[in-house]
Amino acid sequence: MDRRSFLTKSTIGGAAAGAAALAAPAYAQGNRTLTMVTTWGRGLAGVHDSAQRVADSITAMSDGQLTVDLKAAGELVGAFEVFDAVTSGQADMYHGADYYFVGQHPGYAFFTAVPFGMTAQELANWYYHAGGMELHDELGQIFGLKSFLGGNTGAQAGGWYRQEISSPEDFQGLKFRMPGLGGQALGKMGASVQNLPGSEVYQALASGAIDGTEWIGPWADEKAGFQEITKTYYTAGFHEPGAGLSVATNRDVFESLTPAQQKIIEIASAEAHQWNLAQFLTENGTALQRLQSGGVTVREFPDSVWDAMGTASREVLDENMGDELFKRIHDSAMESMRASSNWLTRSEGAYRSQRDRVMG
Amino acid sequence: MDRRSFLTKSTIGGAAAGAAALAAPAYAQGNRTLTMVTTWGRGLAGVHDSAQRVADSITAMSDGQLTVDLKAAGELVGAFEVFDAVTSGQADMYHGADYYFVGQHPGYAFFTAVPFGMTAQELANWYYHAGGMELHDELGQIFGLKSFLGGNTGAQAGGWYRQEISSPEDFQGLKFRMPGLGGQALGKMGASVQNLPGSEVYQALASGAIDGTEWIGPWADEKAGFQEITKTYYTAGFHEPGAGLSVATNRDVFESLTPAQQKIIEIASAEAHQWNLAQFLTENGTALQRLQSGGVTVREFPDSVWDAMGTASREVLDENMGDELFKRIHDSAMESMRASSNWLTRSEGAYRSQRDRVMG
Repeated sequence: MDRRSFLTKSTIGGAAAGAAALAAPAYAQGNRTLTMVTTWGRGLAGVHDSAQRVADSITAMSDGQLTVDLKAAGELVGAFEVFDAVTSGQADMYHGADYYFVGQHPGYAFFTAVPFGMTAQELANWYYHAGGMELHDELGQIFGLKSFLGGNTGAQAGGWYRQEISSPEDFQGLKFRMPGLGGQALGKMGASVQNLPGSEVYQALASGAIDGTEWIGPWADEKAGFQEITKTYYTAGFHEPGAGLSVATNRDVFESLTPAQQKIIEIASAEAHQWNLAQFLTENGTALQRLQSGGVTVREFPDSVWDAMGTASREVLDENMGDELFKRIHDSAMESMRASSNWLTRSEGAYRSQRDRVMG
Repeated sequence: MDRRSFLTKSTIGGAAAGAAALAAPAYAQGNRTLTMVTTWGRGLAGVHDSAQRVADSITAMSDGQLTVDLKAAGELVGAFEVFDAVTSGQADMYHGADYYFVGQHPGYAFFTAVPFGMTAQELANWYYHAGGMELHDELGQIFGLKSFLGGNTGAQAGGWYRQEISSPEDFQGLKFRMPGLGGQALGKMGASVQNLPGSEVYQALASGAIDGTEWIGPWADEKAGFQEITKTYYTAGFHEPGAGLSVATNRDVFESLTPAQQKIIEIASAEAHQWNLAQFLTENGTALQRLQSGGVTVREFPDSVWDAMGTASREVLDENMGDELFKRIHDSAMESMRASSNWLTRSEGAYRSQRDRVMG
């Protein structure tokens, strides 16, 4: 089913289902179940966990008033159908990576990651204190959503390749899985880029339908099992230096909640952003050691490849600058990134260099 | 008043006040006011804000059941008296930097910062996913507290000096304000170290009672006005690479709350940790530019000084290792730091180097 035909069908069915839910006795008593769909299969490490964290925190803090019923990808709708399911009212909220929805609006890329963009900390700085959250909300208003950041994977690994990458030419004709604007940049370098949900990547790689893939990082990649197929792993990538995950609630549903319930969704989502980032960073360290013990070779792209990635990334960003809202989001994000990056380098960066030097 | 005599008096008065509060009609109706004392004067940028953030989130999410009444330092008790005020029941909770209480137990240092210890992200990794929170709770049980992280300043600046520091010998006899184990390390380097609450530092520096001070970073330091007294500023420091702030609730009070209210305090505190860190990092960038425009000279300590700081810091940590709980906290924190630091270097670190090289 393509996205448009899905939207048409779900708008009709979803509106009826939504009305039924609103009329249910549970709502009259002040207790309510919110259905959360996700872009994650139930077994996907970290990303599913952050959706569950948001759901559990909302349920626990609202003391029975709200129960969030989490439906993983495929349980109610498919991974890439969650956006339409929530805008149409078929589901109440989604947890997912907003860059899956650059087809709806390219500005969504910034709330997951753009190539050569912000690290997780830089994203948090921008989002919570330099206008990011307000711009996310402005995007959401277009589609009838109330969006918050609700997870983060940290800097994502460059990915799994069948052969070593020694020059930009190696991307010519390479069938590679990469979503968002990063994927578009790889396309400019000659790759044949595919956007597959996480739960379909292993099979595609194993069957040879794709030559390589990025997914998240050592921990989630190990759980997905890519090391069973190839042993060549690039740890640093250009495409998602700190991938944010989002919680989006149908705006009519959100506005029907009490101010306390709205605040609970906002704070639960923000807390999950930090909790999930710390989870990935903690788990990745030990997972990388296990992968290397299992024969995986860790590599870094040569400078010539990084340079080509930089050129392609700039092209992709520039192509979207004709959209007024995209440009405003881009300019706001880049200004915030530069300002906070400078201080981070001078303080924490200088400290870490000295800690490594002095303490070994 | 010294701490011990304060504790004795407040235990008696506080118990009576606590009993009165529990018997008040507001509690019978399910609505309750929690008094939060802080180690921060009301005007101290960032640190007071994070206390207010926690208080406001709890009040908003609990829908009138809990109202947190924030009393800044000096409004109910002095900055360094908050620990005893909450353990005794005189106040319900505090927001503060737990390393002010290394006299109660040296293990508290790890929940703010130890010299050559964790960055803010490394602290979050350890706290939320590698045992840190559980150890904080174990410490709290000794004193009748339920503690959570509830703020973070990021990497703190090396501080303000009247003269350039060119060798470790320059610390001989230097009267310097620095709390926690970092201050003890400076003492080993020959400094005469003082621990003053934030609201008293400006006057001490202006009067010459101290020769120099660290406080937080460009934004909070600028608001405190130290640039009016001296223009020599060291941006990177060894002493607080990512200073966590804590929310501690009297354990009897905490256990008298409903599970939903307890969860609200937990999640509100964690959210404030991220929100506050992003606030400091966003504000520090522009504040540093203003300080430099105003004539402040930014310097870095030479390697010989970092080396001496490293030696002194190791000594201070080693001196406390006879305490079983201190050693367990130390070992847990350092193991987590090493594991997550390695991945951060390989992923985000490598990415940032390439971003700087490619994008300028």
